[in-house]
Amino acid sequence: MMLENTKLKVILLVLSVCSCALGQSYLPNWESINSRPLPAWYDQSKFGIFIHWGVYSVPAFAVPAAPGAEWYWYNLEFNTDNGSTRAYHDDSFGADFTYQTFAPMFKANLFDPQQWANLFVASGAKYVVLTSKHHEGFTLWPNSQAWGWNSVDIGPGKDLVGLVSKYVKQAGLHMGLYHSLYEWFNPLYDMNNATTPPVSDSYVTQVLLPQLYDVVNSYEPEVGMYQTFIPKTIITILTFFISYQSKVWADGDWEQNSTYWKSTDFLAWLYTNSSVKDTVVTNDRWGSDCGGKNGGYWTPSDRYNPGTSWGYNQNEALDQYQNTTSLIQTLVSTVSCGGNLLLDVGPTAEGVIPMLMQERLIQIGEWLSTNGEAIYNTTFWRVQNDTIDENIWYTTNAHTGAVYAMSFYWPTNSILTLEAPIVQRTTTIELLGYGESLSYSTANGQKSGLNIKLPFLTPGQYPPHGVYTFKLSNVL
Amino acid sequence: MMLENTKLKVILLVLSVCSCALGQSYLPNWESINSRPLPAWYDQSKFGIFIHWGVYSVPAFAVPAAPGAEWYWYNLEFNTDNGSTRAYHDDSFGADFTYQTFAPMFKANLFDPQQWANLFVASGAKYVVLTSKHHEGFTLWPNSQAWGWNSVDIGPGKDLVGLVSKYVKQAGLHMGLYHSLYEWFNPLYDMNNATTPPVSDSYVTQVLLPQLYDVVNSYEPEVGMYQTFIPKTIITILTFFISYQSKVWADGDWEQNSTYWKSTDFLAWLYTNSSVKDTVVTNDRWGSDCGGKNGGYWTPSDRYNPGTSWGYNQNEALDQYQNTTSLIQTLVSTVSCGGNLLLDVGPTAEGVIPMLMQERLIQIGEWLSTNGEAIYNTTFWRVQNDTIDENIWYTTNAHTGAVYAMSFYWPTNSILTLEAPIVQRTTTIELLGYGESLSYSTANGQKSGLNIKLPFLTPGQYPPHGVYTFKLSNVL
Amino acid sequence: MMLENTKLKVILLVLSVCSCALGQSYLPNWESINSRPLPAWYDQSKFGIFIHWGVYSVPAFAVPAAPGAEWYWYNLEFNTDNGSTRAYHDDSFGADFTYQTFAPMFKANLFDPQQWANLFVASGAKYVVLTSKHHEGFTLWPNSQAWGWNSVDIGPGKDLVGLVSKYVKQAGLHMGLYHSLYEWFNPLYDMNNATTPPVSDSYVTQVLLPQLYDVVNSYEPEVGMYQTFIPKTIITILTFFISYQSKVWADGDWEQNSTYWKSTDFLAWLYTNSSVKDTVVTNDRWGSDCGGKNGGYWTPSDRYNPGTSWGYNQNEALDQYQNTTSLIQTLVSTVSCGGNLLLDVGPTAEGVIPMLMQERLIQIGEWLSTNGEAIYNTTFWRVQNDTIDENIWYTTNAHTGAVYAMSFYWPTNSILTLEAPIVQRTTTIELLGYGESLSYSTANGQKSGLNIKLPFLTPGQYPPHGVYTFKLSNVL
Amino acid sequence: MMLENTKLKVILLVLSVCSCALGQSYLPNWESINSRPLPAWYDQSKFGIFIHWGVYSVPAFAVPAAPGAEWYWYNLEFNTDNGSTRAYHDDSFGADFTYQTFAPMFKANLFDPQQWANLFVASGAKYVVLTSKHHEGFTLWPNSQAWGWNSVDIGPGKDLVGLVSKYVKQAGLHMGLYHSLYEWFNPLYDMNNATTPPVSDSYVTQVLLPQLYDVVNSYEPEVGMYQTFIPKTIITILTFFISYQSKVWADGDWEQNSTYWKSTDFLAWLYTNSSVKDTVVTNDRWGSDCGGKNGGYWTPSDRYNPGTSWGYNQNEALDQYQNTTSLIQTLVSTVSCGGNLLLDVGPTAEGVIPMLMQERLIQIGEWLSTNGEAIYNTTFWRVQNDTIDENIWYTTNAHTGAVYAMSFYWPTNSILTLEAPIVQRTTTIELLGYGESLSYSTANGQKSGLNIKLPFLTPGQYPPHGVYTFKLSNVL
Repeated sequence: MMLENTKLKVILLVLSVCSCALGQSYLPNWESINSRPLPAWYDQSKFGIFIHWGVYSVPAFAVPAAPGAEWYWYNLEFNTDNGSTRAYHDDSFGADFTYQTFAPMFKANLFDPQQWANLFVASGAKYVVLTSKHHEGFTLWPNSQAWGWNSVDIGPGKDLVGLVSKYVKQAGLHMGLYHSLYEWFNPLYDMNNATTPPVSDSYVTQVLLPQLYDVVNSYEPEVGMYQTFIPKTIITILTFFISYQSKVWADGDWEQNSTYWKSTDFLAWLYTNSSVKDTVVTNDRWGSDCGGKNGGYWTPSDRYNPGTSWGYNQNEALDQYQNTTSLIQTLVSTVSCGGNLLLDVGPTAEGVIPMLMQERLIQIGEWLSTNGEAIYNTTFWRVQNDTIDENIWYTTNAHTGAVYAMSFYWPTNSILTLEAPIVQRTTTIELLGYGESLSYSTANGQKSGLNIKLPFLTPGQYPPHGVYTFKLSNVL
Repeated sequence: MMLENTKLKVILLVLSVCSCALGQSYLPNWESINSRPLPAWYDQSKFGIFIHWGVYSVPAFAVPAAPGAEWYWYNLEFNTDNGSTRAYHDDSFGADFTYQTFAPMFKANLFDPQQWANLFVASGAKYVVLTSKHHEGFTLWPNSQAWGWNSVDIGPGKDLVGLVSKYVKQAGLHMGLYHSLYEWFNPLYDMNNATTPPVSDSYVTQVLLPQLYDVVNSYEPEVGMYQTFIPKTIITILTFFISYQSKVWADGDWEQNSTYWKSTDFLAWLYTNSSVKDTVVTNDRWGSDCGGKNGGYWTPSDRYNPGTSWGYNQNEALDQYQNTTSLIQTLVSTVSCGGNLLLDVGPTAEGVIPMLMQERLIQIGEWLSTNGEAIYNTTFWRVQNDTIDENIWYTTNAHTGAVYAMSFYWPTNSILTLEAPIVQRTTTIELLGYGESLSYSTANGQKSGLNIKLPFLTPGQYPPHGVYTFKLSNVL
Repeated sequence: MMLENTKLKVILLVLSVCSCALGQSYLPNWESINSRPLPAWYDQSKFGIFIHWGVYSVPAFAVPAAPGAEWYWYNLEFNTDNGSTRAYHDDSFGADFTYQTFAPMFKANLFDPQQWANLFVASGAKYVVLTSKHHEGFTLWPNSQAWGWNSVDIGPGKDLVGLVSKYVKQAGLHMGLYHSLYEWFNPLYDMNNATTPPVSDSYVTQVLLPQLYDVVNSYEPEVGMYQTFIPKTIITILTFFISYQSKVWADGDWEQNSTYWKSTDFLAWLYTNSSVKDTVVTNDRWGSDCGGKNGGYWTPSDRYNPGTSWGYNQNEALDQYQNTTSLIQTLVSTVSCGGNLLLDVGPTAEGVIPMLMQERLIQIGEWLSTNGEAIYNTTFWRVQNDTIDENIWYTTNAHTGAVYAMSFYWPTNSILTLEAPIVQRTTTIELLGYGESLSYSTANGQKSGLNIKLPFLTPGQYPPHGVYTFKLSNVL
Repeated sequence: MMLENTKLKVILLVLSVCSCALGQSYLPNWESINSRPLPAWYDQSKFGIFIHWGVYSVPAFAVPAAPGAEWYWYNLEFNTDNGSTRAYHDDSFGADFTYQTFAPMFKANLFDPQQWANLFVASGAKYVVLTSKHHEGFTLWPNSQAWGWNSVDIGPGKDLVGLVSKYVKQAGLHMGLYHSLYEWFNPLYDMNNATTPPVSDSYVTQVLLPQLYDVVNSYEPEVGMYQTFIPKTIITILTFFISYQSKVWADGDWEQNSTYWKSTDFLAWLYTNSSVKDTVVTNDRWGSDCGGKNGGYWTPSDRYNPGTSWGYNQNEALDQYQNTTSLIQTLVSTVSCGGNLLLDVGPTAEGVIPMLMQERLIQIGEWLSTNGEAIYNTTFWRVQNDTIDENIWYTTNAHTGAVYAMSFYWPTNSILTLEAPIVQRTTTIELLGYGESLSYSTANGQKSGLNIKLPFLTPGQYPPHGVYTFKLSNVL
């Protein structure tokens, strides 16, 4: 599968589902914590929006093949990009201009959380994840541990986590938060890592854990509402950066790190005592990937490379953007593997989501308004993509038994061939967005495999955006 | 014809062509000046890019139904928008923050004129017009009359007119400049207008004319190259704003104003003595509009309304953007009337052309790479849009005799009916981008009017972007 | 004694001296800590310079009868001055301009520590005390607990404590530091004080104590050199502000507070284990005041009132400055009581000590160059000011036995009468700066009391600055 | 005469007085203009305050032995100081920070014109001269020729000329303005000087003259009040800078320059038609200096050297300040020559006159309150300083006939010897500030020359500040 590079970033979240029950007490060890099942709402949502917003949105600069614009401070200090960020910085702001001086310029003066929520609803996303804190340490909510370095004390003068949470939840979406475990330049953290293993846990006990408890308690969902916190994404992002962040992460195997981070204490509290204990999703069981089940060519790490920006980057090129069709293809293949697509947007320092990202989201929403039943509330089918055609992907709805074959192309001979489905006498086939049943024939008298006869359509009559869904009822 | 609102602004330049000769001497009166013919290159180009860039690109704010973001200063001081700009300004920058204080923030630190030129070439445009000075008075080149208020003295520290001119010309495009005749707040100008008629011409003699001579002399084309100055756009824009700028312009009939502006002196020099005397285009003959020939529903003023921004506007909404198809339709109908489309982009203060505008330009270029022969070097045909179908527009190439019918739709029955062409025995019809001749029949044995049989195509085989060109050879 | 108001602030440090030994181990309780003697160098120095410098030096504004300019942030937020600071702030910087935004404007770009040291030496001071941290929490040295809020991370980009310490010590002076125990807006501190008594000590353990240990360890003196840390001033200043800072300090009696602050732990370490254990001076024994011994009209609290600024204040009036004579009188009366004068200067944000303060310091130095033997290394005599004349003050030198009578006036009849000294046959009297012995007579044949005959001098021959020292040898 | 360097700058204005009448018409030629007498008020005032205030007050930096802080822009661009200003600028503000960007930082937010006026009155000055425009071109009043580059359009947002004029005049002082004829960087001016002689007068006609007429008309005095404009200082300052500004001024002899400047046109209007025609003072007759009459060692140019700042300079040293006594000596010797002392102060960008300058002014006022009758309304006597003692200077009052001998020292033998006065039988001598007549004797029976017996005084009884005035009545 050939995909263009993308500027709308994607995270593939692949989750296993167990039959354990929610609502019990968990102990601060991995065995107990791992026994908790994944809340159903998350497995059914499939598509979420990730938002990277912070002080880095002010300089908003990164070059290709280096960490993205949200790593500006790190790129500036550690020269990860052959001096590009340093040159840009010195030329634009002066060599004496410290990163912290950007904070007053993070104004969010055009930030309209209602407009954001409307956009996310129109995109078809079911949840939103905002960076409550990225590696720079700046928090988007008022926080005692980040005094003078949060969005109320300086810059926007607003509780951005609170505002986004409020409007997203009012719009009927789930709200989640990303929170970086570590901080590049917090001296309490650096100090601890001066030796291996760390000799002190003062950063964890004095900064990280108070923040995690505070952010969960402050922005909890209403009783009976959907959950609001997805710490899973916390660890997802940190895991991701292992590959090129060897200085920080290389030597620690995970078990040691989770002990250092006191993760099990926090998670046991989160699952047992917090107000979101029944609905919260985290990524503690990350590791079982989709690739092993599907031939290995589709791995989460495809999209995680240093050459992309999660935060707003003014130094981007048009050809780095995935087009709408490519983004839909990523959504389809991800969901076919049982995963969730978390698509990233980077608002400006003023609070505007770039127009091209907005248009892409609206177009994904157009596609989902026609094809959503093949995505939401589905699970992976017995095959993910078709045996003979890797550009056709399947999902199924456990309640209706329908199987959805999503094709990335329209055959020029108007005959679409599927290998995997086993037809029955009652099998019917429908093209979503077309409205009429399609005729088909089985090949060579075999029950497995079938040829679908496609209609002749003129421009404007085709379902939109180049990915076509064939709903198969009563197939095996 | 229903068109969405657009954020890529368009100017319709409709020009009559006379048979007079270039290369002679002109006198400073309208009769002599009007006798000069329009240089051919301009009439053949059809599609240009307009760039609004200035100090206003820093605040980059306007609300709908008020003058655009390039009018920020005026909106701020004269409250043309029910206080919206004032409220935004005071909240974001403070009530004591003067407009001039924005100048140091106009950094152009990501400005890459080569990338701009590449983009304009890829769009299919043949010329570029940059605002050398807008009504704020800030000049994008070093200028004695705008001391301390030009792009070299403060802000970018660069000769932006020079850089854009250099790279645009190197890319083989024509370069033009927009230059505002008046300035809102230049006290020399205000003083003059305190009485009617003006009692003093000090603004014109001390500011405007020195600037016009300087900008022509400084950025002249090389010998034998294309011309570089399009003062026509100067007057076009000023004429345009008459409709709602009654305070400034209402009482003056044009003759009086042109006397005031000393226009004929300047134009006589421009046409007789300047280095661009043979190639320069101006809009002195503006007034003969297309609408009179085509039923009147298509007028230039459609696109000129206060509710749009020419400069970068951060406070824009996605639904204010025209889509690519609509923009191509505007190009087609304009060229069918014998006009030129000048499409506006508004770069950011850092020098980046917004991504969505870039994508639109690239897509117009895709369309022109297939359909350009129906646009470039053509003239209006004997009818502009088809007698029975206003969604089909014609052009013709005087050299080959080919007539191009451009349809805004693909008929669902695959039969396209044209009323105007008169077929002959040798008539052939081709769909640009398809490659094979199409069969057709005349209706009721008449020579006028024909039905073209369209092919069945699948997605990906259709020519792009929803406007289809049928090339008719040997029709009358 | 009538003194004008002063802008060069003074602190009166009155100290008792015990005969206990240094160099032993101390336990973390007051009994043990109080048993430590005062290091001799401090008791001999008599005159030091206090420096208030911080982010508050940027706005540099306070009004009379309210806390001074170093309290800008507090005045701004808690309206201690009928809105004056708020009005100035909003008008000058805008209502959205947060206090933290001043930090980049604290540039110290004209800071010349060598020039400072030269000035302090010329003033005759023997030690210097710099605010390593004031109540705003901004530290003048790089500090992990004040990340992003210290002089290396933002603003000057320099270790100001390190630079001042280096040059002051090189100049042969002792170096001390002031460090505020509490911070107005550190949320860890506010949180703790939400209840009475505080329920948490996280501010003390996570911020204050790490800072105190760090600052002592980082800027310790060289072996065998003079000590460098005077935490005494820490508590002095905090004690001072009790009077009008009831919100913060009122309800706590000292014992409870010192437990909260964990003072005895720190002091036991400081006196027993730190590198400055033998030379460091603190103010734990504050409380024995001079007034009880001298009639009570001279109390330290005279000079501590809210209507004065310790930090640089641009909104000051000339008539708020004490003149040189008044400052010298304060020094004299303080030393006569056995105390130390700590005179405050407020440098600008650029690092310049205001010229008028510099001139005052130079003039005090002129006076000390003539009269210094009556000040340095002296102790209080058996009376402080003369029995019949409160404008004559005494000191004595324990080694030579000389008694110094310092008069605030020159009698118009040229006869100076002293009541307290008991003359002997060998008694001689000298006017410092004059060079010849003076004749005297005892009154009425009594040994106590004498009349000194003063010489006739012309302008330029008088000792400078209006305070005249008479050295009495061999008196009782 | 040994004088310390000074930071309170002085200008010696020496004026001849003719017997011509005011109130007539003058023609635009030097003969006619020179025939106008000097208005009496000015010749009687003797002491004025000069104020240098502008955008240069923001960076406020100069090094010794280079043009002062008001030349910052010039020093920066033309490297007159071995790179010192450039280094300071780049380090403090960044290399891309243009001079114009300082303008918004010129806030005048603590400017209190009433406090200024009170201070000037207390100093004993009788008139005040403010820089309406210095060589940077920034005007302190709203001006059409300096659009966007004046104190109303940017920075203070106030008419500083208007405010100072109002309060100074209300306080009973005369108000004057300094206005630079040329501007360093105004391209209209530079252009003109590209050739010798200038080929164009556009700067003079388009900028300078409109400004001069505007400033006179706008800030004229009330009818019957004192005059408000002293263009004399215009030319004084420009003349001054000739000595080291050879680049700009060297080749032009004065006659040619005054033609270029169209000075006679302006002056003829000023003296004949303006509202201040009867009271205005200008320096057209500058050139007859005091030195020729007094031995030549006292010349105006003593105080005009490049190593001093007229504008506020943060990079100054205390030892560059003249002390009060020295300043009074300069006043005395100037007035003895028939001149006027114009003493310069440099307020900060916030509008505060530095405290040390304020103290000096107050102390001069103290001296004048005792000795003023020897200064105001006096004229030069038949000798300026005493024949045998150059530290004794004379003035006389034409109405009373009193002669004032001002001594810079108090003789240690208490006998003051004067050579020049010729005593008579009725001669009496008084020490101002003492109150009793002094006895004297003539030397060797001669009438010329006398010895005055001085009283014995104690400190506090002497007249202040070290310059003693002896009033001689009935001497020849």
